[in-house]
This record gives sequence, structure tokens and C-alpha cells, in this order.
Amino acid sequence: MKPDDPLPRIAVVLARTSHPGNIGAAARAMKTMGLSDLVLVEPRHFPHADAVAMAAGAADVLDRARVVPTLAAALADRVLAIGFSARGRDLSHPVRDWRALAPEAIAGTAEGPVALVFGNETSGLSNEELLACQRHATIPANPAYPSLNLAAAVQVACYELAQAAAAFPVAGRPPRSRATGADLEALHARLQSLLVANGFLDPAEPGRLDERMRRLAARLDLETEEVAILHGMLESLARRK
Amino acid sequence: MKPDDPLPRIAVVLARTSHPGNIGAAARAMKTMGLSDLVLVEPRHFPHADAVAMAAGAADVLDRARVVPTLAAALADRVLAIGFSARGRDLSHPVRDWRALAPEAIAGTAEGPVALVFGNETSGLSNEELLACQRHATIPANPAYPSLNLAAAVQVACYELAQAAAAFPVAGRPPRSRATGADLEALHARLQSLLVANGFLDPAEPGRLDERMRRLAARLDLETEEVAILHGMLESLARRK
Repeated sequence: MKPDDPLPRIAVVLARTSHPGNIGAAARAMKTMGLSDLVLVEPRHFPHADAVAMAAGAADVLDRARVVPTLAAALADRVLAIGFSARGRDLSHPVRDWRALAPEAIAGTAEGPVALVFGNETSGLSNEELLACQRHATIPANPAYPSLNLAAAVQVACYELAQAAAAFPVAGRPPRSRATGADLEALHARLQSLLVANGFLDPAEPGRLDERMRRLAARLDLETEEVAILHGMLESLARRK
Repeated sequence: MKPDDPLPRIAVVLARTSHPGNIGAAARAMKTMGLSDLVLVEPRHFPHADAVAMAAGAADVLDRARVVPTLAAALADRVLAIGFSARGRDLSHPVRDWRALAPEAIAGTAEGPVALVFGNETSGLSNEELLACQRHATIPANPAYPSLNLAAAVQVACYELAQAAAAFPVAGRPPRSRATGADLEALHARLQSLLVANGFLDPAEPGRLDERMRRLAARLDLETEEVAILHGMLESLARRK
């Protein structure tokens, strides 16, 4: 990580978490997406063996977690706090799709540390807690059952952050040695002559076989080595006749 | 759900899952994103109380889960199977970023049922299992610790599917009653006259106060009702002098 990477400047704040296993699972979710700053507001049980068990390889995130008595203390040094909510509340700010809002969180890290805030497993964030946040985000979900597990919500939230930061680009395909037009024509010609020799194809009435085979080959995006293998197969079949 | 919705036509296939709690958590993750077809290949323990506990409100998904003896049986009726892998394998197809591939899974449902395939918690999908899939996807993650929990990976995968299908649009902000230019000018004038009467502002040397206040007000995007409240506050302060 470079020192100006945005992800280490974004904390996950868990308010009044009931189950310590969820704290550990959230730590694991954070680490898989490059986040490491975990803040716990009034956790019911912490430290706890269940948290350690669920953190798996993210024990370091758990070890460095800070426990604070109030949400205000957790947000004291933050320039932007984003509260997660399953649905809009009457008095709250408008709730925005997290994918649309995540780039604002990334941009915010240029001005200071940022926080993502998640409420209790059963009740979510209280209205008071939501009002301590400057933005409200939601993860779009099935209205018939929008109840993501707490650590699952942290996983999706951190995943979107990493995507917005383009933090972990997937390496492109290794450069392939693509077959050329001449390679393909030679392959079609060999198949053609084999099938004529076989009696499968009557050159006087070819029908649409060549068209179908060319359509199929087009979809294959063959590589040079694959053309060589197919040539070898066709040659061996021709010899067996 | 409309009958032509793509999400019910996409199964999640879990191969050789060790921990039944992960099966339940995966069922919950699926349901939150509108998926319901769970297929289990050789689960170590199923049914199991841990699965039920972790499924929470998604017991229906668990109840309808199908247990099959081989991955081939799970994929027999599928027109497209996408295997999830944390990294590329030597002999495998190129691994693609799941966000880029998800629209292909959605489009595939127009031709028949589709499957997302996840391997064992510890070892992932075997090379043989990967070769039974027509596409390989990866969820971009921290190279220093790319180890998403199985159910967390299912959550992110299903979330991306729902996003690609635009299945659960977030309701736009409720229409707001935005303040007009005249509203804002009246507010600035009242603040100005109060501060002059107060002695805070010297009309002979106004400095840049008006500019700062206008910059601040511009960021507020005030609503009509908020303008009325601020007018009332300023009026009450003027009366108290």
C-alpha cells in the first residue's frame, strides 16, 4: 500500500454489536478488501473467542481494533461519516445507493479520515446515530428480505470501496497467441478434404456444413497451439482411413 | 418477481462444503439478493442445526436446497456454469473480474438456467471442478489476504448479480421543495441587516463575509421549509436585541 492509498484512511465503525462472532467476521471482510481500521462502540462482548475464531487470518485487524464508549468519540476525528441503513427513515437525510456514494468516500480521504458506520444486528442504527453521520447509504437488497448479516454488509460495503478505489485490478488475460485467418482457412480446408474423403460431405451438394463449421470456429477464438492440435487430430483421422 | 426475472434462474452450487453454518449463511446471502435455488454437492454435514441457525429468515431457501452426488449432476441442466476462484490456475480458462462477467450470467438466463459454483472453504474448486465450468470469475481482493469467507463470497457474487439485473433500484430522493433564488436573497438580506444592527458587520467595510455566507448557503441546497425556519430564527434574534 502506498501512504496515500485511500483504503487505510477509512474506518469501519460497529455500533453496539451483539455477537462477537460478527466482529471477527467483519474484521476478516475488511482485510480481504484492504481495510484495517476497526472501531467498536459499546460492543456487548469484546474481546471474545468467537471474534478471534471468525477473524481467521485477520487477527491483526482485531488486535488493533479500538473500543470507544460513544459514536461521537468514534467520529471525533472523521471528516466524513457514512451511516448504513436498510431503508430510509422519516427524519433522516436521503438514503443513497452505496455504489453511487462510494466514490465520495474515496474522495473524502483526501481531506481527512472517513468512517463507515454500521448499527446493531437487530435494530440497525438508531435515528440519533444516523444523525451523527453526514451521509446515509443503503445496499440495494430484496425488499421481501433485505436482512444482510452484519459482516456480510461490511463485506459488500468494503468490496464497493475497493472497487471505487480500483485497488485490486484483476490481471488481464495473459497475452494469447491468436490464430490468423490463414491458420483458420488451412484448418477448414483440411477438415473439408477429410470429410469429403470420408464420404460425410458430398462436394456436389455441400449444403450448409461449411457455413456451420465456420460459425462454430468463429466463436472459438482459437489459439495457434489449438490450431496445431486440431491439425494433428485431423491428420491422424485421415491416416486411419 | 415476474416470471421472466433472471435471478430465480440462477442457482448457487456449493461443492464439498465443510461447515454447515456456511451453507445457512450462503442461503441467507442469496435470499437478500433475490436468489433462491441452492444446490449442494457432497456437503460434509447437511441438514444441520448450524445451517438453520445461520440461515435466519432464509429457511425456505435451505428447505428447498437440492443435494446431489456430483458437480456434473448439479450442472446437467445448466446452459452456463461460472466457477469462482481466488486466482488463476495454470490450465484453466482466463479468470475474469466478476463485475465484468455478471451481465453475461444475467443474459445467459434467456437461454436456460445458469449456475454459480463455489468450492470447498479450504481448497476452493479443484482443477477438475473448474474445467466443468464454462467461465471462471474472481472477486477482486487484497492480494495479501484474498480469503473471503465462503458465505461472504456468495454475498458479494449475488449482490453483483442483483446489481447487473438492476433488480432492486433504490427509490430516488423524495421530491424536495427547493428554495428559489428569491428565497435565498431574502435570507441573505435579513442576515445582513441583523449583523449590521448587531455591530458584527460594518457596512462601510463589509470584507468578504457576504461572499463566505453565500458560498456556505450554496452548499446547503436549502429547502423552502428550512429557509422559513432560518427566517424565524433570525427574526427572533433581531427581536431579542
